[in-house]
Amino acid sequence: MTRHLKLVLEYDGTAYHGWQVQPGLDTIQGCLEAALSQLAGTPIQIMGAGRTDAGVHALGQVASCGVDLRLDDLALQRALNALLPKDIVVCAVESVPAAFDARRSARSKTYRYTLLRRAYPSALEGRYTLHVPHAVDMDAMAEAARCLVGTHDFSAFRAGTCAAATPIRTVRRAAWRAEGDLWRFEIEGNAFLQHMVRIIVGTLLDVGRGKRRPNDLPEILASRDRRRAGKTAPPHGLCLVAVEY
Amino acid sequence: MTRHLKLVLEYDGTAYHGWQVQPGLDTIQGCLEAALSQLAGTPIQIMGAGRTDAGVHALGQVASCGVDLRLDDLALQRALNALLPKDIVVCAVESVPAAFDARRSARSKTYRYTLLRRAYPSALEGRYTLHVPHAVDMDAMAEAARCLVGTHDFSAFRAGTCAAATPIRTVRRAAWRAEGDLWRFEIEGNAFLQHMVRIIVGTLLDVGRGKRRPNDLPEILASRDRRRAGKTAPPHGLCLVAVEY
Repeated sequence: MTRHLKLVLEYDGTAYHGWQVQPGLDTIQGCLEAALSQLAGTPIQIMGAGRTDAGVHALGQVASCGVDLRLDDLALQRALNALLPKDIVVCAVESVPAAFDARRSARSKTYRYTLLRRAYPSALEGRYTLHVPHAVDMDAMAEAARCLVGTHDFSAFRAGTCAAATPIRTVRRAAWRAEGDLWRFEIEGNAFLQHMVRIIVGTLLDVGRGKRRPNDLPEILASRDRRRAGKTAPPHGLCLVAVEY
Repeated sequence: MTRHLKLVLEYDGTAYHGWQVQPGLDTIQGCLEAALSQLAGTPIQIMGAGRTDAGVHALGQVASCGVDLRLDDLALQRALNALLPKDIVVCAVESVPAAFDARRSARSKTYRYTLLRRAYPSALEGRYTLHVPHAVDMDAMAEAARCLVGTHDFSAFRAGTCAAATPIRTVRRAAWRAEGDLWRFEIEGNAFLQHMVRIIVGTLLDVGRGKRRPNDLPEILASRDRRRAGKTAPPHGLCLVAVEY
């Protein structure tokens, strides 16, 4: 009998070409499907809540699948962690109703982008942070971030290759906080367009450096023009923290 | 004219055979000496405050050396960070009197050992923590750790290969604290014998699992017998946090 499962996943995206399966490339989804298929003895496909880009990390990615397996949830979690490479970990396995779809059932997602705000780089945090050696104004970035909260057309913060049906998204929270040298930006929304968080961070960094003013943000949003926003920030500072259902 | 320098170093020890130069092996000291020698145009030797084992990390290792270089401290720091691999970072360069010796001038060192106390491993923290999937009693480990504070003969907590002239050391502080799943043990002392912190952690873990009682510690110390203490804990949970002068 087919069981429907929800998997909560942590991964270090450094070595992967992102979440989504691509022929001939190492991807998170590919590794998970290989491990599940090996246990099930038949090809298994999984659905991820968010298609994280190459190099992006996760503390709480969620995936769903249907499998025909005798293992209970805990035994399956252990078997998967034994098969998976060390940089992909299954944090939880839970049985869910057949209607559960990690992507469509998600009510909101939280992403975090971390800057290392100091003159010299870090040997221990370098994989998970963007090194920002120059001064940036956190108050200005926080003020700019607040302009994004609400339901907007985010076309200006969307990759050219984004395939989403609509550019309308609702951002519930967008805030900065400092933990010593680590400056963390957390953004929660109902869903995100391709590269949306990274383009937002690139734009906020321009504000932080004084190249733009915080109240340029409403204008950039209204333009619906990708060229008006900043650069796409590098992937390795980004982490999918949680998906809420 | 020769300048005498103090370097503060952060490194991820995962890829290295420890601090100390060994022919044909990648070591932290070897990488630093290669970078300094390249800048100086002549072989440079450095002295490290602590000879961290293979796989041990550092947030605040200190090294000293004498070099004949025109670069000022900040330019030298930047040049070294440009030459060094990403997992070794120079956090500070400071000019010091000729008498300064990173090893002999040190007044105390602080090491930290981190456990990941949860059922499943971590993709992001796995390089820097020891995964402890079973229950351990932090109160018991804290009580046992307090028995180590003071000046003692630490022969029971010393590797067979330790070359130190005396096994007497003074531990100033030895305490546990929890940060969510991360359980951190910090120990500060005037100096440490080879493997001393790792053998202490291995012994405290026995206490945490109930295999030993906290008040076994004074007896183990008094025995001066390495066989009475616990196993040497794995290196990757250990980090040299700071050296005080």
